[in-house]
Amino acid sequence: MGDTIRRMRIPVDLKHASRLLNHGPTVLVASGDGAGRRDVMAAAWNMPLDFLPPKVAVVIDKATFTRELIAASGSFVLSVPNAAQLDMVVAVGNTSGRERDKFATYGIATTPASQVPAPLVEGCLAWLECKVYPEPHNEATYDLFLAEVVAAWAEDFAFKDGHWQNLPEPQRALHHLGGGNFFTSGGLLKGTATG
Amino acid sequence: MGDTIRRMRIPVDLKHASRLLNHGPTVLVASGDGAGRRDVMAAAWNMPLDFLPPKVAVVIDKATFTRELIAASGSFVLSVPNAAQLDMVVAVGNTSGRERDKFATYGIATTPASQVPAPLVEGCLAWLECKVYPEPHNEATYDLFLAEVVAAWAEDFAFKDGHWQNLPEPQRALHHLGGGNFFTSGGLLKGTATG
Repeated sequence: MGDTIRRMRIPVDLKHASRLLNHGPTVLVASGDGAGRRDVMAAAWNMPLDFLPPKVAVVIDKATFTRELIAASGSFVLSVPNAAQLDMVVAVGNTSGRERDKFATYGIATTPASQVPAPLVEGCLAWLECKVYPEPHNEATYDLFLAEVVAAWAEDFAFKDGHWQNLPEPQRALHHLGGGNFFTSGGLLKGTATG
Repeated sequence: MGDTIRRMRIPVDLKHASRLLNHGPTVLVASGDGAGRRDVMAAAWNMPLDFLPPKVAVVIDKATFTRELIAASGSFVLSVPNAAQLDMVVAVGNTSGRERDKFATYGIATTPASQVPAPLVEGCLAWLECKVYPEPHNEATYDLFLAEVVAAWAEDFAFKDGHWQNLPEPQRALHHLGGGNFFTSGGLLKGTATG
């Protein structure tokens, strides 16, 4: 399916970075310590936190290898996967990077990020390179990480001039319902304010 | 459209409350001080924060009347609206409750909540009654509110036995893209883990 799409990763203006997560897609959280250890997991519990500088919030469980690598590097990359990547998303969401290199196990291709050691996951729709704000209380009490988006990227066919495009089904984002069930992003609606 | 749906609000087991927000829908945040002042606004920046007790995170701007009422009451209600409510969602997201009673202005019917002074917005798909965890640093620095879900409700046709149902388009949840544009929740996909 992806073969029919002309893929071209373009930088996203930081003032539009929040829109990459605004609709609530499940993301992949990639991490790396810059010394060869890396991991990737799925995270439905994420949201934008501010417009400019763009900030994000994401929940990362204490038990994950990802958590250890984020603690080591102070950074991570969020990649926004699509429906064609469903099985990979479920797989990396249900296995631990302590037991296997998920990139090798599931054949996940990556590209280096521009400002952090964690990689971008190939084949996704958009990417956010993030540096963690040290907030030990939130991390310890709520498994909650707050971070600044220092670089953002999107596929030109998917997010153009600051706006998500109406995409064919296999390219639509995933919204996790729990238990491995997802909605894809559906139809585009334009609201007309009556206020 | 709603006339063809048999509406019946049922309690949601707290262990399933996180699933009401897991797919990233835009919500309405209702607030009330218990003394006659109340407000409602739209918030795309929300996410589950824990399973049990269920917790949520939501961003509430300092300038909003909602913020003032949440500070007064320590609580709020999240309602999950649907596509048939699009214009109302956009309207309450673009006006201030300091200048008008949005419930009266936009003809928004409500039902009392069971444990907090803020109301449930009628016509929505699901509701979460929330009590704020006092976290002054997060509120002041990030406009970020963390809260425990103390009661949860859903329309029986929309969320049954802990699972969202495949709904007709007007009843699907809204996912805000920014600028008054939305995706509805799309098709249901079941992942098959390969791990």
